Amino acid sequence: MVNVLFAALPMRWDQYETPLRKSFEDVGLDVELTPSNAPFDPAEIDYVIYAPNSEIQDFTPFSRCKAVLNLWAGVEDIVGNETLTMPLTRMVDFGLTEGMIEWCTGHVLRHHLGMDAHIHGQDGVWRAGIVPPLARDRIITILGLGALGSAVGQALRALNFQVRGWSRSLKQVEGIACYAGDDGLSEALTGAEGVVLLLPNTPATENTLNASTLSLLAEGAFIINPGRGPLIDDTALLEALDSGQVGHATLDVFRIEPLPAEHAFWSHPRVTVTPHIASETRATSAAAVVAENIRRAEAGEPLLHRVDRKAGY
Amino acid sequence: MVNVLFAALPMRWDQYETPLRKSFEDVGLDVELTPSNAPFDPAEIDYVIYAPNSEIQDFTPFSRCKAVLNLWAGVEDIVGNETLTMPLTRMVDFGLTEGMIEWCTGHVLRHHLGMDAHIHGQDGVWRAGIVPPLARDRIITILGLGALGSAVGQALRALNFQVRGWSRSLKQVEGIACYAGDDGLSEALTGAEGVVLLLPNTPATENTLNASTLSLLAEGAFIINPGRGPLIDDTALLEALDSGQVGHATLDVFRIEPLPAEHAFWSHPRVTVTPHIASETRATSAAAVVAENIRRAEAGEPLLHRVDRKAGY
Repeated sequence: MVNVLFAALPMRWDQYETPLRKSFEDVGLDVELTPSNAPFDPAEIDYVIYAPNSEIQDFTPFSRCKAVLNLWAGVEDIVGNETLTMPLTRMVDFGLTEGMIEWCTGHVLRHHLGMDAHIHGQDGVWRAGIVPPLARDRIITILGLGALGSAVGQALRALNFQVRGWSRSLKQVEGIACYAGDDGLSEALTGAEGVVLLLPNTPATENTLNASTLSLLAEGAFIINPGRGPLIDDTALLEALDSGQVGHATLDVFRIEPLPAEHAFWSHPRVTVTPHIASETRATSAAAVVAENIRRAEAGEPLLHRVDRKAGY
Repeated sequence: MVNVLFAALPMRWDQYETPLRKSFEDVGLDVELTPSNAPFDPAEIDYVIYAPNSEIQDFTPFSRCKAVLNLWAGVEDIVGNETLTMPLTRMVDFGLTEGMIEWCTGHVLRHHLGMDAHIHGQDGVWRAGIVPPLARDRIITILGLGALGSAVGQALRALNFQVRGWSRSLKQVEGIACYAGDDGLSEALTGAEGVVLLLPNTPATENTLNASTLSLLAEGAFIINPGRGPLIDDTALLEALDSGQVGHATLDVFRIEPLPAEHAFWSHPRVTVTPHIASETRATSAAAVVAENIRRAEAGEPLLHRVDRKAGY
């Protein structure tokens, strides 16, 4: 029997309890799982599944705890906690990458195939013969070639799209024509029929898509932003949508979230707003990662995704 | 200089002229290309690009013609023509397979991600936190494991879906759990959350999806039919849509085409009708196949997709 404490907000317990119990069973662990708002004895706890916004901030009483398993990818709010002397892991959730691939690939194919005309236009008129070009004749540019951008680019390549990728410093990703720097950005965008934004949010990436860069795209290109709101100059995008230079924008992230009800994006006929759902840590996949790590610790195997306290991540 | 005659309806000339000229250039051929409604001397023609509904039915005057390149996959209307003594090729268009993969994958992802709710529902209300399961947790069943069904199944597998495939006689396709026969059909459909129909149209496959087989699916499953209209019992499908057993049907083919404007499929809120566009021979890819074959003949290499006159295909 292994004693595991779940130290996160009560709403997370509702999401995680069932997936965690299933994942423990899947890896053959016999676990006593307790949420931190139920009675427990810290000295009896073997592992803490932890969200940094939990009420637990002092780990001193957890005298036999073998590891703290962070539910978040970010550990900046916990890595400096001096009472946390046991091994600490951060969340690397395969669901985050897979969900992003699925969302991006789905929306790229939606625009590639011109699906909206059929979804909106069930009017009894049979409009035969309008067939889109093949993916092999479309250029899609991914801005950002980190783990997510590279994975999305490769999934699109596997569907035969011509994929270009751009990052601030030059990378090499198989199947993707890679560009870097300011000149490379112009080259990567020129003639692109679709753009997927997966850059980090930094001062250098703000307004990467602006009036000037949007004008380089093929007329009627589509924009997909599952990255960060500030990557796009909203006013320039609205102007490009009005002129037809951009055919459609599917936006999942915004400068202000939730996107205010009166924002022009909601009512623009060429914009689809989605509520920051392109990719989230899923309880099922995150629970599987946590259970696998506890199994490893119990078996004497090294922990996955262990935080290096000196490096801070 | 190679003399090539384009013998098909004038509307095809409009579609094919530019792609053909580009494809000849791509393979380095210097071609004099003439449509059959312009003046030409049959005795000077080296190759005939041919549609069986062309006005040309007597090939006797084409005394130096080295090959007839059929634009259609089917050769049943031409293979018995006794004046056609030169080598004959049929069209095997990679665009047909690729287009089908793109259309099926796009619509599977559309239903998997629940896109329609966002495409229809731009009402200014931010509905956060509704994230679909991952593809790895979804079962999609492909009915029909010919060239198209196998290719679509493998594309879905590459996106992590759990893919089952069914065919009348058992096949083995990498990455797909294969089933066959009547018992296999029940197993393949039980609990499936999506079904893609790519069976041939034969007396044995009529009404493969009927009240009984539809009842095996997971509640709210989606149906995608880019195959043939008669594969589905339309009345049973409408009942399953009304009850919610089927969540949505995206249908590209019908028992009567064009689908009559008064048909219930057009107005049903859970049906998307598309006008038989899932896959068509594309002029660009078909032109590339034709040009490659003429290049081969000129270089003394064997023709691709040459018809065996005795076998009839």
